[in-house]
Amino acid sequence: MGSSAMSSEPFRVGLLGFGTVGSAFAELLEQRAEEIERFNGRRPVISGVLTRTQGSFEEILAGADLLVELIGGIEPAREYLLTAMNAGKDVVSANKKLLSHHGEELFETARERGVRLRFEAAVAGAVPVVRVLEESLSATPIERIHGIVNGTTNFILTEMTRGSSYAEALAEAQRSGYAEADPSDDVSGRDAAAKMAILARLAFGTPVHLNDVCYEGIEHLHGDDLEYAREFGLGLKLVGTAERRQGGLSVHVHPTFLYSGHPLAAISGSFNAVTVESGTITEITLSGPGAGGLQTASAVLGDVVSVMTGGARPPAPPLPLAIIEDVESAFYVHLDVADRPGVLAAVTQVLYEQGVSIKSVVQRGMGEAARLVMVTHPVLESSLRAVIKRVGEFDFVRSTPRAIRVIEEEFV
Amino acid sequence: MGSSAMSSEPFRVGLLGFGTVGSAFAELLEQRAEEIERFNGRRPVISGVLTRTQGSFEEILAGADLLVELIGGIEPAREYLLTAMNAGKDVVSANKKLLSHHGEELFETARERGVRLRFEAAVAGAVPVVRVLEESLSATPIERIHGIVNGTTNFILTEMTRGSSYAEALAEAQRSGYAEADPSDDVSGRDAAAKMAILARLAFGTPVHLNDVCYEGIEHLHGDDLEYAREFGLGLKLVGTAERRQGGLSVHVHPTFLYSGHPLAAISGSFNAVTVESGTITEITLSGPGAGGLQTASAVLGDVVSVMTGGARPPAPPLPLAIIEDVESAFYVHLDVADRPGVLAAVTQVLYEQGVSIKSVVQRGMGEAARLVMVTHPVLESSLRAVIKRVGEFDFVRSTPRAIRVIEEEFV
Repeated sequence: MGSSAMSSEPFRVGLLGFGTVGSAFAELLEQRAEEIERFNGRRPVISGVLTRTQGSFEEILAGADLLVELIGGIEPAREYLLTAMNAGKDVVSANKKLLSHHGEELFETARERGVRLRFEAAVAGAVPVVRVLEESLSATPIERIHGIVNGTTNFILTEMTRGSSYAEALAEAQRSGYAEADPSDDVSGRDAAAKMAILARLAFGTPVHLNDVCYEGIEHLHGDDLEYAREFGLGLKLVGTAERRQGGLSVHVHPTFLYSGHPLAAISGSFNAVTVESGTITEITLSGPGAGGLQTASAVLGDVVSVMTGGARPPAPPLPLAIIEDVESAFYVHLDVADRPGVLAAVTQVLYEQGVSIKSVVQRGMGEAARLVMVTHPVLESSLRAVIKRVGEFDFVRSTPRAIRVIEEEFV
Repeated sequence: MGSSAMSSEPFRVGLLGFGTVGSAFAELLEQRAEEIERFNGRRPVISGVLTRTQGSFEEILAGADLLVELIGGIEPAREYLLTAMNAGKDVVSANKKLLSHHGEELFETARERGVRLRFEAAVAGAVPVVRVLEESLSATPIERIHGIVNGTTNFILTEMTRGSSYAEALAEAQRSGYAEADPSDDVSGRDAAAKMAILARLAFGTPVHLNDVCYEGIEHLHGDDLEYAREFGLGLKLVGTAERRQGGLSVHVHPTFLYSGHPLAAISGSFNAVTVESGTITEITLSGPGAGGLQTASAVLGDVVSVMTGGARPPAPPLPLAIIEDVESAFYVHLDVADRPGVLAAVTQVLYEQGVSIKSVVQRGMGEAARLVMVTHPVLESSLRAVIKRVGEFDFVRSTPRAIRVIEEEFV
């Protein structure tokens, strides 16, 4: 736990896991130990390492002031962290899966035992969004967070914006090391949803489980959606949103069009970024590399230093806040239709009946068919889904209608 | 100083100064007191207020756990902060002028007395760059910082990019409340230089006085520089830079052209942003509103909460690092010349002699005159100044040659 800044005892770090991040962390700690000692009076050292085949958890725990968990997955990481905290040890973890499934159990244990649980690296790599939410903005009533929190999908979408197909962009991401051989956790939006659950807990103080987050991936996007988007001055990103709505909290991840003035619109390649909105501060954006062994290791070491300097505190007890699923948003709607009289009238009648109002529309003839692309004003998702269903039943509609969320420029 | 998280005693904040920021701070503290107590176990209260005409500094000091200094200027702010720290009290200040002139004296007093000195609001308003440098990146060897740290000049340059003249843009900034009646501290680059001195101290651990910072303002920019810049795909910002160079540290503020891919290129209006570069983290960018009473008050309150939670530490003792003034940079060079044979050859001969190599060039005839606009590869400023001087002596040159720094895209 706390440490006297002037003691000359080394600060003993037990390391659980020695994969890409674990080994980068051990190396970075070694490189930076002297500088950290200069600032904090104690020199951090790795006092033990647990790998799949070597080391004893109990011995490492007994010989450490703090444990760093870089194993990943639910078990045995959960068991190790709970045991360490129950033994009065501070812990640092980069485990987004564990935190999005068992966050409350971990937070409560930290609170009960008065120990610190740090996890900057679990959300957006080297981008210090966890610390900024926990500390700098702890005095700020946050209204909304938007985040690009998955570098793999942002890389793929950036490539698609430059003209690649989804398959080409995914293959390029795999070649460049930005996507794994099995990319499903990333491209399905599940990884981003886990991170948004963690961010929402920090920003709004309410328990958010991964199961509370509606998410949709990028696998079903069409290249022509990106082309039409350009006509409307929009860019396409996989955006996670957590926001106060109707007295509750809504957390969701969807492919989303952004007006070019939005701070997230300029985030390209594998970078991550988070925008925090509040009446008090207008908006703050943090961006940087979202992943990579060295970046993650750097965030983990920052957490270790913050525990050494006594800076972190246990998370506050949770506030009850209802999870709201049906929220308003503007939508882009794409329809392939037969090019004949009355089509636009029939579609707009359905929109009118559901109370959906149109901001802009482009209709383009293509021989016997036409494409009808619209951007709506904000509307409840349920109403928009009802429109899509009814319109899909018309005999002049040639393929399944598609709808994508749009975030309009609100600031500057 | 430190406080037990579970105590129910109120946390007493003495407030020095009650102008725009001071009154916004008092109101925000009142609004957020309950939420802060929920998280931290103690409720912050304003225990005394010193204005120009009311209150006793000694009484306020005696009755406070922490002092917030929002008076501004050097004296009596310096005297009050030193007295408070010498009495063992933690302090929070938003005073960039004081910190850029007397930072080392204040830091040393904080260190000797073991008290905390927080100043998030002194640099970039609500953008939490001080905390991120002090804490999240304390384990990261920083190579370079670029910052847009003056909202007034960024607002003016944004307006000029949209076609306004400098005078029109300044008048608009004054109408909108983004510039003061006497804007000289902002438009001369002096305000940005003070903030860069503070950031450089944090990032590199070396004492940096305002006098160590070379700065240049935006008063002498021409609209046609912005026009030519667009042809090269550049945007114009007032950029502060602090970077390791030749074993020392260089800190300077200049109007600077940025390639459109640079994270600072998209920062518009009165917003601020800082980019931190390091081999470990690649780059992180933080952006948000740079000023405004409420934003500044929010940053001050964040500092108060960080002291309440025991998070801050005194700054480390300074490292000696030489201040380097003559550093390499790419430059944009603008010449008005007579349109006659041999001009380009004469100019390029001078460039060749000084070892300056050209990346791109545009020459445009205008009746009997021509404009010659070039972007160089990186070159020492002294060499570039020598070129400018020699070229200015040619009889075919019709007006004083102009040179503006260029930052090239290095990442993504």
